[in-house]
Amino acid sequence: MEFTINKEYLSQAVSDVSKAVSARTTLPILSGIKMAADHGRLTLTGSNAEIVIERVLYSNVQGESMVAVHKTGSIVVSAKYLNDLIKKLPGDLLVKVGENHSVSIQSEDIVVSLKGFHAGEFPRLTMSQPEASHKLPGTVLADMIKRTMFAVSKNGARPVLTGVHFVFDQNFFCSTATDSLRLATYKHNIGTSLIGSFIVPQPALNEFLKLMGSYTGEVTLKLTESYIEFSTDVFSFYSRLIAGKYPNTASLIPNEFKTVITLQASDFLKGIDRAALFAGEWNNNNVNLTLLEGKKLGISSRSMESGTIHEIQNINSLEGEEELSISLDGKFLTEALRGIKDEEIKISFSGSMKPVLIESVSDSPYQHLISPVRAY
Amino acid sequence: MEFTINKEYLSQAVSDVSKAVSARTTLPILSGIKMAADHGRLTLTGSNAEIVIERVLYSNVQGESMVAVHKTGSIVVSAKYLNDLIKKLPGDLLVKVGENHSVSIQSEDIVVSLKGFHAGEFPRLTMSQPEASHKLPGTVLADMIKRTMFAVSKNGARPVLTGVHFVFDQNFFCSTATDSLRLATYKHNIGTSLIGSFIVPQPALNEFLKLMGSYTGEVTLKLTESYIEFSTDVFSFYSRLIAGKYPNTASLIPNEFKTVITLQASDFLKGIDRAALFAGEWNNNNVNLTLLEGKKLGISSRSMESGTIHEIQNINSLEGEEELSISLDGKFLTEALRGIKDEEIKISFSGSMKPVLIESVSDSPYQHLISPVRAY
Repeated sequence: MEFTINKEYLSQAVSDVSKAVSARTTLPILSGIKMAADHGRLTLTGSNAEIVIERVLYSNVQGESMVAVHKTGSIVVSAKYLNDLIKKLPGDLLVKVGENHSVSIQSEDIVVSLKGFHAGEFPRLTMSQPEASHKLPGTVLADMIKRTMFAVSKNGARPVLTGVHFVFDQNFFCSTATDSLRLATYKHNIGTSLIGSFIVPQPALNEFLKLMGSYTGEVTLKLTESYIEFSTDVFSFYSRLIAGKYPNTASLIPNEFKTVITLQASDFLKGIDRAALFAGEWNNNNVNLTLLEGKKLGISSRSMESGTIHEIQNINSLEGEEELSISLDGKFLTEALRGIKDEEIKISFSGSMKPVLIESVSDSPYQHLISPVRAY
Repeated sequence: MEFTINKEYLSQAVSDVSKAVSARTTLPILSGIKMAADHGRLTLTGSNAEIVIERVLYSNVQGESMVAVHKTGSIVVSAKYLNDLIKKLPGDLLVKVGENHSVSIQSEDIVVSLKGFHAGEFPRLTMSQPEASHKLPGTVLADMIKRTMFAVSKNGARPVLTGVHFVFDQNFFCSTATDSLRLATYKHNIGTSLIGSFIVPQPALNEFLKLMGSYTGEVTLKLTESYIEFSTDVFSFYSRLIAGKYPNTASLIPNEFKTVITLQASDFLKGIDRAALFAGEWNNNNVNLTLLEGKKLGISSRSMESGTIHEIQNINSLEGEEELSISLDGKFLTEALRGIKDEEIKISFSGSMKPVLIESVSDSPYQHLISPVRAY
């Protein structure tokens, strides 16, 4: 294997695939990045037990040469060394495989020799022929993930709840996450011939979002029984799926309410954020909401150790009963409110011990449900 | 105590004095900030076992009112809560002490009540009448600290070496740090009537630099036997001094050399930085320097596990013997070189097992000495 490459291109690609490389692996080869040079392109791959990231650099993209392959072949090299080293080397790099899987990298008057591994030993993802595929804008997919994944269960008692549940159903593509105390769901209307669902582990989605960065192009989803591939024209991202049956969450969202209020979203978020300061884990992050004569909303919180906070905010509108007092987890509330981009929100109450539904006032694809906590 | 204050002023001051507050103290009162309102000013104090930081806000500074004191008095409040809370409150704040050392903070429609402590219980720094004082530009003092303090000893076997040694000697003010393998010293020429020396703990200097931030005004040093005070028109910073006799370091710097070379500083730093990648702790961070026919300098490093790096750099000038090979700690070298702001540096060698002197070519107040390590 031998190729010449622009330092910046290689550095970016190595940094991207490194997101799948775990520094604390017991198998040395898994701490490496696979470089495979083919006619006209160089493919980099990073992998761990959960995800695989692949980036391809072409020798000619819109007249600009990213890489010049002089000799095909492949090798695996330590991700950590590659990452640090390439940043510190000036100018173009000549990369060559020598004897005993050694790799030499030359840049101006600098010669580096790295110990490598035989590429044949690098684990291979055996993704069978995809059973289904769908294309959608990267920004929509990122939104569907970002606005739900924080609600996954943080303990592994029910593995299916540690992932985000995606459902295709002819007219929509929907993402849902719940830890059984709260639920976040985002429904994107599309025309698709697909029907089916799958669960993606939350850590994989987190890495996927980092890799997406500011990428705004289209993403193709390809599904097999055990794996999903998200691919763009820049990278491919593979994750295993979580096996098992996701609970029926659609039936959880109530459609009859005792009281529905609307509020300014940003003021309410600021108020909850302040009150949450005093709502430690010792009292379930309790923040209390109380309707004051149907015209104002009182927000308060108390910490035995530190103090209390009380504030009064205006309500834009109220429908239904004017009496209400409810305690909610302040951390859950702030996370839910951060998922809403709208200026005005609607909060629907069914009683002080029933889940609260939070939505934006305008017709929105996003819904959030929070179960109240017992007030002390 | 009762005062009205602009949120931004209080937030900045609380953040400044918080630098002296340790979150992990067993004495609850030490996790607090003391607020003392006097006629025309509010003084905030944060303190731990090592340092004290004080900030004064005046009711009238150049026509602008920072604080309006309605009632004098004092109280101690949790630093963590104050910090987080003030950032989240809008507009001006009315701060009042109530019963049982409670503090209420009002901002628009928000009322916060915090549990406080009796200010009398807050530890007091008993700084006796200063024995000596000197005024110098903040930027010079910051430079004297920054360019030496990284060389202090990281283990406490010899406590005096864990601090930076400052010496006043009529015509100069000098700072020195050494861990006995390397030494950094900075000599600032001044006219002073002072003669004497003192040792300041490195962690205190580190906090002092953070507090200085971008402050460029004058700093007054005031000394007693056990304490130093650095004061500006914005804050006062107190630290205990390290007792004991600092070794005579001036005699360590050699003045006869076998070989003296000059080099481009930034290229050399980049080369050492690259080579240090392969110079792990297993081999004393060894980076090898070799003169090549008196014209070039070879920089190399080898890691048994990962690989090797070799590069060749130009020398600007050479005086003395043309043969030399020496191994130095790459981390020490990069730290020393980062202390030099000049474009060209001078490296003076006395032999492969003798300390190396690094200076800038132009007449500079900064000198760095590094003992070689044994090459394997």
